[in-house]
Amino acid sequence: MIKKLLSALILLFVVQLGVFSQNRQEISIPDIPGFFTMKCDFHMHTVFSDGNVWPTFRVQEAWQHGLDAISITDHIEYLPHSQDIDADHNRSFEIAKPLADQLGIILIQGSEITRKMPPGHLNALFIKNANLLEREDWWEACLEAKEQGAFVFWNHPGWKAQQPDTTLWWKEHTRLLEAGIMNGIEVFNHHDFYPEALTWAKERNLTVMANSDVHGTIDMNFESFRPVTLVFTNERSAKGIRQALEERRTVAYFDGQLAGDRKFLSPIFFNSIKIANKAIGLKNHEVKRIWVHNNSDISYKLKQRQPSIGFSCPSDITLGAHQTVLLELTGTSDQVINMGVLKMYYEVENLQLLSGENLPIVLEVANK
Amino acid sequence: MIKKLLSALILLFVVQLGVFSQNRQEISIPDIPGFFTMKCDFHMHTVFSDGNVWPTFRVQEAWQHGLDAISITDHIEYLPHSQDIDADHNRSFEIAKPLADQLGIILIQGSEITRKMPPGHLNALFIKNANLLEREDWWEACLEAKEQGAFVFWNHPGWKAQQPDTTLWWKEHTRLLEAGIMNGIEVFNHHDFYPEALTWAKERNLTVMANSDVHGTIDMNFESFRPVTLVFTNERSAKGIRQALEERRTVAYFDGQLAGDRKFLSPIFFNSIKIANKAIGLKNHEVKRIWVHNNSDISYKLKQRQPSIGFSCPSDITLGAHQTVLLELTGTSDQVINMGVLKMYYEVENLQLLSGENLPIVLEVANK
Amino acid sequence: MIKKLLSALILLFVVQLGVFSQNRQEISIPDIPGFFTMKCDFHMHTVFSDGNVWPTFRVQEAWQHGLDAISITDHIEYLPHSQDIDADHNRSFEIAKPLADQLGIILIQGSEITRKMPPGHLNALFIKNANLLEREDWWEACLEAKEQGAFVFWNHPGWKAQQPDTTLWWKEHTRLLEAGIMNGIEVFNHHDFYPEALTWAKERNLTVMANSDVHGTIDMNFESFRPVTLVFTNERSAKGIRQALEERRTVAYFDGQLAGDRKFLSPIFFNSIKIANKAIGLKNHEVKRIWVHNNSDISYKLKQRQPSIGFSCPSDITLGAHQTVLLELTGTSDQVINMGVLKMYYEVENLQLLSGENLPIVLEVANK
Amino acid sequence: MIKKLLSALILLFVVQLGVFSQNRQEISIPDIPGFFTMKCDFHMHTVFSDGNVWPTFRVQEAWQHGLDAISITDHIEYLPHSQDIDADHNRSFEIAKPLADQLGIILIQGSEITRKMPPGHLNALFIKNANLLEREDWWEACLEAKEQGAFVFWNHPGWKAQQPDTTLWWKEHTRLLEAGIMNGIEVFNHHDFYPEALTWAKERNLTVMANSDVHGTIDMNFESFRPVTLVFTNERSAKGIRQALEERRTVAYFDGQLAGDRKFLSPIFFNSIKIANKAIGLKNHEVKRIWVHNNSDISYKLKQRQPSIGFSCPSDITLGAHQTVLLELTGTSDQVINMGVLKMYYEVENLQLLSGENLPIVLEVANK
Repeated sequence: MIKKLLSALILLFVVQLGVFSQNRQEISIPDIPGFFTMKCDFHMHTVFSDGNVWPTFRVQEAWQHGLDAISITDHIEYLPHSQDIDADHNRSFEIAKPLADQLGIILIQGSEITRKMPPGHLNALFIKNANLLEREDWWEACLEAKEQGAFVFWNHPGWKAQQPDTTLWWKEHTRLLEAGIMNGIEVFNHHDFYPEALTWAKERNLTVMANSDVHGTIDMNFESFRPVTLVFTNERSAKGIRQALEERRTVAYFDGQLAGDRKFLSPIFFNSIKIANKAIGLKNHEVKRIWVHNNSDISYKLKQRQPSIGFSCPSDITLGAHQTVLLELTGTSDQVINMGVLKMYYEVENLQLLSGENLPIVLEVANK
Repeated sequence: MIKKLLSALILLFVVQLGVFSQNRQEISIPDIPGFFTMKCDFHMHTVFSDGNVWPTFRVQEAWQHGLDAISITDHIEYLPHSQDIDADHNRSFEIAKPLADQLGIILIQGSEITRKMPPGHLNALFIKNANLLEREDWWEACLEAKEQGAFVFWNHPGWKAQQPDTTLWWKEHTRLLEAGIMNGIEVFNHHDFYPEALTWAKERNLTVMANSDVHGTIDMNFESFRPVTLVFTNERSAKGIRQALEERRTVAYFDGQLAGDRKFLSPIFFNSIKIANKAIGLKNHEVKRIWVHNNSDISYKLKQRQPSIGFSCPSDITLGAHQTVLLELTGTSDQVINMGVLKMYYEVENLQLLSGENLPIVLEVANK
Repeated sequence: MIKKLLSALILLFVVQLGVFSQNRQEISIPDIPGFFTMKCDFHMHTVFSDGNVWPTFRVQEAWQHGLDAISITDHIEYLPHSQDIDADHNRSFEIAKPLADQLGIILIQGSEITRKMPPGHLNALFIKNANLLEREDWWEACLEAKEQGAFVFWNHPGWKAQQPDTTLWWKEHTRLLEAGIMNGIEVFNHHDFYPEALTWAKERNLTVMANSDVHGTIDMNFESFRPVTLVFTNERSAKGIRQALEERRTVAYFDGQLAGDRKFLSPIFFNSIKIANKAIGLKNHEVKRIWVHNNSDISYKLKQRQPSIGFSCPSDITLGAHQTVLLELTGTSDQVINMGVLKMYYEVENLQLLSGENLPIVLEVANK
Repeated sequence: MIKKLLSALILLFVVQLGVFSQNRQEISIPDIPGFFTMKCDFHMHTVFSDGNVWPTFRVQEAWQHGLDAISITDHIEYLPHSQDIDADHNRSFEIAKPLADQLGIILIQGSEITRKMPPGHLNALFIKNANLLEREDWWEACLEAKEQGAFVFWNHPGWKAQQPDTTLWWKEHTRLLEAGIMNGIEVFNHHDFYPEALTWAKERNLTVMANSDVHGTIDMNFESFRPVTLVFTNERSAKGIRQALEERRTVAYFDGQLAGDRKFLSPIFFNSIKIANKAIGLKNHEVKRIWVHNNSDISYKLKQRQPSIGFSCPSDITLGAHQTVLLELTGTSDQVINMGVLKMYYEVENLQLLSGENLPIVLEVANK
């Protein structure tokens, strides 16, 4: 009888879902030549470890926030809800998968290998059976991940709870690196930036990542920007992401900043902006204006790094997201009229190279 | 060994919590003479029935949104997560209670008795053991609720999945009413308003309620306002709420509107606003200005219902939340100079009486 | 000596302007086949009549708000600042023109012929000398405008100060129409919509317009949307606008709504949205989802106007500005699998035809 | 005839004003013991010098933004609109005064004495006749201001156009100071902070000020906060302001920061916040929570400056504007249970003393 009642109820809920409509806010960051720019978050939790939400919620949330791919990485070793939740380590993935397929979210199976430092916490993506990662010895858990073909990265390497004073690289990380097990590193996790991780990524050829590590909801934990790993792929698929991670084609995006290799940052910047003017014909003592439109979600903060020849231009510019900025150029020399192209030398303060330096760029406008 | 590892981990998490600080956004609606105005939501779900969040999340969310009291009302009969969650019907309350105590949120134990129409869905608040409500026969479930001393109300009476065409009152509801079991009714649930429920509340002495019935998160489901039941209590406690519900001292607050009895709406309005001016000395053909400050979160929309004697005033006024509005009065008769008090006759379009009519009010300012 | 001091000061201010940079927020409404969609406001005031801002401010404001063209239409007959401002009727145009040229704003010379009803207030655009419009007789002022080649339209035809009870068409308007002087009409002015004007536009072949009539600032007078006349032009120039106005290629855009001819509304809608799916292969009893992305600033509100054949779809949809919406289609008949294209029948509630009816549209998705 | 027409028109506009209603957003910063906290802006321009708005607009804008008093300080020596505006230096005050009286804004007559450096630009408040300030010699202009009983302060002392490299105090300023002419200084102007001015204010007994120096509109020039000079007065009047300025009872409020004397900053902070808890009874190894509510518009950023005895508390706290923050205290010693009062030692990072240091504060909660 309860069963019959239940099926009547389920029918009601199905009917209700039949008029489902909801909104997705796309993230506007341009593709770059040869690659799609995919927006991914590879670190998050559900009630199946110490998170506060059901696995399908993670998919819905990711869809609404414009992500292309996520990985639910519940802890293997830390299960505070186990008194009430009776499930194996693959369940959060299994529960989330059907909705991910329906919504077109690429769901990558993952788990967090959760140990004290060293080696701290590691995420294993593209695993096949999370249950086999439950080992007493952390090294064996990592070996198992490798055996399953996982892509493994070091989470929040400077987390104060594990590295209270200084952010150290331990010999265990060298061991993981040399064994070809650990290939990536979070330079940003939740609200924290780890500049050391950027240096290590450069020196040791690690893939940079920025992930939310969200336990509650993105809405409650992040005011405007959620951390995202931008992945530059040949195809919009799990396979494309896998290959890109292996080939270090990523940029960390967090707090309105990007950190990564120049070969990705530079085309993102130049594919975001457009200078509307044709030749401006600037002469000495004259003022001409140029229009710079930024079609991306990122507000670029430019700072002049050296003077231009024959004219002056603003020392600080903010190219606001989805805005057009007007720049005034003033001729300061008689030479300027003969210059075919006017070059303005800036660095982008919120685009950071692996060296920690800002991306240098040159804005150009034809003069005749 | 895993145990030792675990305890090390738990220690880390406790340390992290030790620097916990978070923000609560208070709801500014004034108390009224003789009563506290408590902000309550008596209808919500967790992963323990068909919700998407862990019980503690509901408490944290309520705290941040400025609520005073909530009830988690997981379904007794509908448990779609039962494959993974192995728990009895009291668990969501038990899990949420310690955090509620720490945060000062009054948590009222409740359950949703979930049946097809009639009688549809009913919430039982102030129950002692939710497990005993699991009965094949809905009437027996209701009797058990009564036996436990519950306050029972009818949820979303016009829910289209159960009442697709017209919102009917069934003989089963008369039976519940006459047995003294059902004492309240939702006039607003989630995003839907049921005007019939307002009429029934008036005719049959039911306590009006507005609740979120949230399954996911408030942030995702509601843009600005979440539905709230305002409860007017003698003391800020579960006991105070209980007594107020029984004595029908509530107002439904939803979508920037209030619905309820004039004896509550009127003092809320007048305790929200303040006219700054002393005597204004308005004469014929003159214009004088008065300042009306609204110190509440509710933007009141006023519409003139009859002309004033001796002067004119704006026909439509919005007293914006936390704003001061300037009103111009223009003398239109020589009589006006002799009037001690100038009276302006409005109705408040977003304060609705049980009759469905708008609350009439009179603004007064001294003239000499 | 004061002169020398002055020139030193001016130098300072010029230097300051040399580092000028400011933001423009583009309005995202798509072009339509064969035409540019230009965003124009043809009605506004400055301190040279009864406005509160200097003429250059109107240009700067328009630039920041993403407009393509404006006309400053100071009153000829109403000059409340004349005690302090000693200038002829062409000055506001002359002062604003250089900045308009620098910023790329098309500035159309205009004036407001300001009379009691009938004929009320009329704007004359594309005039050559505003001073000649100062005539005692309104008909002579209009004839002069025509002589200068002006495009003339009737402002706020239902303004309560002039038409307190009903919005009438006077014989004077027929006279203007028949003389070929008056060719357009504001269906929206400031905050007011005049549905009668829409009907007259249809019946009498008038160009529809929506303008701000701003006297203070747009920021203070409009919360989100400012009224805009969308003009569909062959070229992005004053000439292109002139021709489009004459050929009635306009749509009124106000309060998130569009009003105008179907031949413009329909391509605006379909150029704003994109359905991502290829063939979805929907079968009976199945649910499939389709993605609809809206790349414009307009949130479209869709209401189903008749059922689809073989499947059901949501009855109400909001295609939010710059958002992707997910729609669930449910197979309700065995026929559906054989249908090559699934058609969904909606009307767009915020796109209004000249008849006052909503724009009907058909959404289509391939099924096999 | 034109005259008759005109009077008909004026009537229309007066009628329109008769239904005037608009909103004022109050600034929530508490009064302090013995004084009202008045919000003032003593530096702004209109079309009567190089501003872009009509004088009444400044009053309306100030009213809407919650100010108590303003001074319109048009330049005496720089009049770029003089070709079109034929008026003396008192006109902007005369035009604005009637609306200021109607709206209850205290309008203080002022002018800007505008010279190259030294002495740069000076504002003279409480003058009686601005025309007499038009002198070739700057010293004579200043003497005239003094003769009229003006309160004079130095504007934007580090303005780059006049002090491009370093912010210098010139002998001319010493002369002004010693002659008792110059009594105040802007530590903040428009978007720029001058830390040197803070030091000089301390060393030379100058009244600190923060003003907008707005030429266009506040909405276009400031995103959230407009600079405001907080003036602590005995009465809410021009006289009260005058006396407070002379007695240096001011604080500069800009960009979410306050700068001024400890005797004002400290009571502002403590009158803004309220700790809800009574005795908390914290023991060793226990965690207790306290609620801190901030009822002001200022978000206070607290940083711990020394550890507490017997317990730990968060090292960084943001007491968000109009929010309640929850703080966790953890007992770390057996002594704690015997402590009658728990003291937490912070500095408020956005409350700056004249010395440039942050305001130190002690939060206290009873323990038994």
